[in-house]
Amino acid sequence: VEQQQQSPNSQLKKGVLELCILSILQQQQEAYPSNMLENMREANLIIPEGTLYPILTRLKNAAYLTYRWVESTEGPPRKYFSLTAEGIVYRQQLFDAWQELNESVSKILQQTNTKQHS
Amino acid sequence: VEQQQQSPNSQLKKGVLELCILSILQQQQEAYPSNMLENMREANLIIPEGTLYPILTRLKNAAYLTYRWVESTEGPPRKYFSLTAEGIVYRQQLFDAWQELNESVSKILQQTNTKQHS
Repeated sequence: VEQQQQSPNSQLKKGVLELCILSILQQQQEAYPSNMLENMREANLIIPEGTLYPILTRLKNAAYLTYRWVESTEGPPRKYFSLTAEGIVYRQQLFDAWQELNESVSKILQQTNTKQHS
Repeated sequence: VEQQQQSPNSQLKKGVLELCILSILQQQQEAYPSNMLENMREANLIIPEGTLYPILTRLKNAAYLTYRWVESTEGPPRKYFSLTAEGIVYRQQLFDAWQELNESVSKILQQTNTKQHS
């Protein structure tokens, strides 16, 4: 079965979402999903809620996140997520991998652009 | 069924490989798979051959690439790939998406690092 072609954007985004979510949690100490989406939106990274939840579940199952329920005056109780010690280590690994990859991609793109203009 | 956790590196890489391969082809005009792997290796982006082939097939099926067979004195004939007009447009879209995403991720990471050191 031929897999449906994803939008260019979505495949690129998928790779970095874990790093972004973990980084937001490291910065905020504790956050509930709407907080995270707002933080990403402020950085112009727009993802649907339906994309966020499975990632949070996966990270929680991998023991990188934990959560607690917090009562809210504005509606139902909210799940506040925070990083575990393993999550802090994993975020650092992702961060290092991202930096390294970014450097590689920059090199490849630069060669292309140099060639185009020469 | 719980999906096996991928290495941090591999999920990040997956998102950018199409952009890298298309960019190498734009730069080289024409290349066979070993050329592409060598180009990536020079930029410190190491992927196994088995990862490259399915991406080339997917890009070819999407009409972004074409290829021709070229005789080689060193062994069997080689498949030389090149970009189609649609492939040039798609590469530009991926490039733009990558630039935009990179900016968003930088913002999120910068906030985290600022917070950590303050």
